Amino acid sequence: METLHVDLGNRGYPIFIGENLLEKPECLIPFITGNQVLVVSNTTVAPLYLEKVIKNLTDAGKQVITHILPDGEQFKTLEQVEGIFTSLLKGRFNRDCSIAALGGGVVGDMSGFAAACYQRGVDFVQIPTTLLSQVDSSVGGKTGVNHALGKNMIGAFKQPKVVLADVGVLDTLNAREFSAGLAEIIKYGLIRDNHFIVWLETNIEKMMMRDKAVVAEAVSRSCRNKAEVVAADEFETDQRALLNLGHTFGHAIETSEGYGSWLHGEAVATGMLMAADLSWRSGWISQEDVLRVRRLLLRAGLPVVPPVHMTPAQFLELMAVDKKVQAGKLRLVLLKALGDAVITADFSWELLQQTLAAGSSLGQVSP
Amino acid sequence: METLHVDLGNRGYPIFIGENLLEKPECLIPFITGNQVLVVSNTTVAPLYLEKVIKNLTDAGKQVITHILPDGEQFKTLEQVEGIFTSLLKGRFNRDCSIAALGGGVVGDMSGFAAACYQRGVDFVQIPTTLLSQVDSSVGGKTGVNHALGKNMIGAFKQPKVVLADVGVLDTLNAREFSAGLAEIIKYGLIRDNHFIVWLETNIEKMMMRDKAVVAEAVSRSCRNKAEVVAADEFETDQRALLNLGHTFGHAIETSEGYGSWLHGEAVATGMLMAADLSWRSGWISQEDVLRVRRLLLRAGLPVVPPVHMTPAQFLELMAVDKKVQAGKLRLVLLKALGDAVITADFSWELLQQTLAAGSSLGQVSP
Repeated sequence: METLHVDLGNRGYPIFIGENLLEKPECLIPFITGNQVLVVSNTTVAPLYLEKVIKNLTDAGKQVITHILPDGEQFKTLEQVEGIFTSLLKGRFNRDCSIAALGGGVVGDMSGFAAACYQRGVDFVQIPTTLLSQVDSSVGGKTGVNHALGKNMIGAFKQPKVVLADVGVLDTLNAREFSAGLAEIIKYGLIRDNHFIVWLETNIEKMMMRDKAVVAEAVSRSCRNKAEVVAADEFETDQRALLNLGHTFGHAIETSEGYGSWLHGEAVATGMLMAADLSWRSGWISQEDVLRVRRLLLRAGLPVVPPVHMTPAQFLELMAVDKKVQAGKLRLVLLKALGDAVITADFSWELLQQTLAAGSSLGQVSP
Repeated sequence: METLHVDLGNRGYPIFIGENLLEKPECLIPFITGNQVLVVSNTTVAPLYLEKVIKNLTDAGKQVITHILPDGEQFKTLEQVEGIFTSLLKGRFNRDCSIAALGGGVVGDMSGFAAACYQRGVDFVQIPTTLLSQVDSSVGGKTGVNHALGKNMIGAFKQPKVVLADVGVLDTLNAREFSAGLAEIIKYGLIRDNHFIVWLETNIEKMMMRDKAVVAEAVSRSCRNKAEVVAADEFETDQRALLNLGHTFGHAIETSEGYGSWLHGEAVATGMLMAADLSWRSGWISQEDVLRVRRLLLRAGLPVVPPVHMTPAQFLELMAVDKKVQAGKLRLVLLKALGDAVITADFSWELLQQTLAAGSSLGQVSP
């Protein structure tokens, strides 16, 4: 087992990474101060791991109730969070209760937001069960829900007390979900860790076969990168926005297709290739760099072509409500090199149009 | 005009108190950093003051949109806040926008909560138009909405950038709303400021006639008391809970009767008398003290008898979900003296039952 620490002063917390962490109550119980615990999970994860988590808690004398969400990004709504509040109130849970998120990013985002808002804030622990949530959403404290008019538009910064990333639970993940997680892993390499890209290029097939040691190493390197970025800029006033590489394009794809049709990681993968494409067209990286990104994404089982019916105009419309817009100016995360991303509004609209129109020809000179 | 400062480090802010502040854009504009402003108001207040506020903002070059809520505590719901998010997203408002609350406590609580959650936090300014909100909810950063199972159970701490308490706007307030505000004013005296009680006993009739200088003085003394308490304990880990004198009893009344039937201040008034009654039965204050509280509340036009049909069992049921419950133990704010409140779980359940059963005989030995 490896332990990382997210360095946020009195909001700091440990991330435990390893196998069979669900069998180690000592990783969970010390981080739950009160007596009441609501475990939030979903219909897919609950049958697999809920019983084990409940047992750890009840063995430690905690009063446990559960709230099971339907599975899917389309249920990441304010209305579903209100259901969590109803469970808390029906259980007469008070201010010193904790909420435990057992599931992927959707469960974590909604549980964390519920924890941020219930009685103006109660404790929160994360037990992420997907690769994506282990390397991304469970670390850093961004929580929230979607609005019909925009993804993740409603939320709060809420740091957990602990994150348990049990790589053993990833065995039950389907191939598509696993690949979606790889997208965010590749992202850390692209934005700030060139060595990690090279390591991924060497190890991607072992990852795809879910070699436990390799997966644990990838989760650990990802969490370390994310923890460093978050510690430097908790509330995303600045450099934390680098973590959004591919997300502005990706959110446009997700919104256009309806949440749940493209997985978040899939949309981010294609979005990252679009960002790489625009970086190349801007003369910042080479064409070979773009193709290298494309090959890695393909080896990771990820899509590299935006929806064929999305026009550049539709992309721009949807990108304009993204949170990276400041003072009316669209800012994008682009690449100065593989492993070196920047946040910038300094790009040519003509080149952006070319990227948005490239379709299956990303990384290639337009015909 | 008087200026108070709420001392919360980088979350600190000024409170301006005086007449005709809506005519003084210099009190508002410097506290709005971005270009986009959503003014939230309600159907009662908007026709009176919205135009003036919009003019101040547009004269300063701001892009202004509005969101008008229905008037009443029964609309303080997550669903209505989602409507505010819809306005923000339709207006393509981004992270550097501000939300201005123009109205009473309900408008302020909902706007502040929307500001806390929209894109995980945007700026917020308060223009309270009721006496209650000028002396209470606009100061201190508590925001939120009700849930069918409990009042103010969903929310966030969100400090405004400025509070404009224009006592001139109170002329349009009806008598019942005005009295509801007096309840919270009397509360500050009861919990920590015996001199203020004596001042109120001398000046209550002038207050009732809305003598501007007297009202401004009362607002100022109230805000000063609240600002001191909040500065010492922003997130209510401890002493800030003193501000809840009468609120645990009061919330039970409000929940039982349905939000909107008793005004919040009315329920708090009766709740404070119940707290005084229990303090007397506990031997901490004299019977004359309780009757003094009762007389002051009556002179302020406030109710002093709980709903006749509420049984002690109903009260306890509703009080058990109150936020002041810690580790399963009901804590109440009680009086050691007039002007000296304590938060305590150390009271006799038998005496509490007597208080809950006293009905119109609060402050009197049971027949």
